[in-house]
Amino acid sequence: MAYELYYWDGLQGRGEFVRLALEDAGADYVDVARGAKKDGLGTDAMMKVMKSRTEPHIPFAPPFLKDGELIVPHVANILLYLGPKLGLAPKDEGARFAAHGLQLTIADFVTEVHDTHHPLATDLYYEDQRDAARVRSKHFIEARIPKFFGYFERVLKQNPHGDTHMIGKKATYVDLSMFQLVEGLHYAFPRACAKFGEQYPRVAALHDAVLGRPNIARYVESERRIPFNESGIFRHYPELDQDAS
Amino acid sequence: MAYELYYWDGLQGRGEFVRLALEDAGADYVDVARGAKKDGLGTDAMMKVMKSRTEPHIPFAPPFLKDGELIVPHVANILLYLGPKLGLAPKDEGARFAAHGLQLTIADFVTEVHDTHHPLATDLYYEDQRDAARVRSKHFIEARIPKFFGYFERVLKQNPHGDTHMIGKKATYVDLSMFQLVEGLHYAFPRACAKFGEQYPRVAALHDAVLGRPNIARYVESERRIPFNESGIFRHYPELDQDAS
Repeated sequence: MAYELYYWDGLQGRGEFVRLALEDAGADYVDVARGAKKDGLGTDAMMKVMKSRTEPHIPFAPPFLKDGELIVPHVANILLYLGPKLGLAPKDEGARFAAHGLQLTIADFVTEVHDTHHPLATDLYYEDQRDAARVRSKHFIEARIPKFFGYFERVLKQNPHGDTHMIGKKATYVDLSMFQLVEGLHYAFPRACAKFGEQYPRVAALHDAVLGRPNIARYVESERRIPFNESGIFRHYPELDQDAS
Repeated sequence: MAYELYYWDGLQGRGEFVRLALEDAGADYVDVARGAKKDGLGTDAMMKVMKSRTEPHIPFAPPFLKDGELIVPHVANILLYLGPKLGLAPKDEGARFAAHGLQLTIADFVTEVHDTHHPLATDLYYEDQRDAARVRSKHFIEARIPKFFGYFERVLKQNPHGDTHMIGKKATYVDLSMFQLVEGLHYAFPRACAKFGEQYPRVAALHDAVLGRPNIARYVESERRIPFNESGIFRHYPELDQDAS
């Protein structure tokens, strides 16, 4: 049976980290909210699960995955669940906790990216918190990108199996998520990323290697890949961008 | 061999969610950064692991757990790892993913609590972002507490095994973490929590039930429980508190 991915229609957002794993593995999946109402799909089908008064394991928010009756919420949790099934997780059990730890650090970074344009309240429009967004983005570019990507670069460097993967000697879902972080940052903050390849050469090389994977290359050229836009996590507001120090 | 918990000395912070599980189970553990330098412990011992140039699985930030050679970072990941060993996880594998999903929602809430006093930058003093903190806290009290705790209340209500546990029919680490959320919110936002028991009766009852567990009751009275303070996640700044609507 096909996996069912539930995520908001019209944006890459957090769902994209799951899509990349499913696409890389060539897995059979349905992107529920993007489907047609006549097929029992669409946003209403997603809201029905979220608003269920009988489902014992209701998700707080999309994305969530349904595999048969099981509902798995949160990106990192979904990838923890799917990783072994898709051949995108380390074999060793201890290494799986390490991979999951990396993915949770990625999740924290994604939250910080979101908060560059929504530092005061998720419910307020960007335009109503632009001044605060400027301050937060300045600190994000000056302090947080270097802290996170310095760390990711070091993780690659200290991988005893070589610096081409975040963990172990084979590609995992963590590598795919790193690709997405790099793509998103370049979209949202092109000035801040002008010297990205020099500053984070191993991360940049990992991004390129992931893009060279046939299923990923096909996917990003396909219509299934929604372009980045200002509804997603990574938004390009030129007034928030600045040169990296 | 004792588990080694690594977290900043002097505050409950994110480490407390792990401590509660270890304490409830009566597990043998060392709170490394709070130990004495002469015993090879203390903050320096923690920084040594974090700054290692050889360790293959370096953590991004505390807390992290060491079990022998394995390093497990991030609260939810640590509890995922420890849960079954401490008898605080569901037995069913699918339910373990559901429990982990709940814990990740708790982690997201904790990040939002932190950002009430640090909405603009982790690196800036609170005093330098107080105006933004007022706006963020207002939205947090009006929109985010109801959204999260309305959800948690509903999770309890829809638990087919009864509304006394977040998942399944026995106490899990998720219940212990819920206790900590309730404690922390009451410390940080006493005005906003004035009617907490009426608004979220099941969550409030769960809090009281956890406090009635003998090992938790002993722990919170002990010197091992650091009092809440303004270095932690839950900080009491009266100017950020207001009545709930």
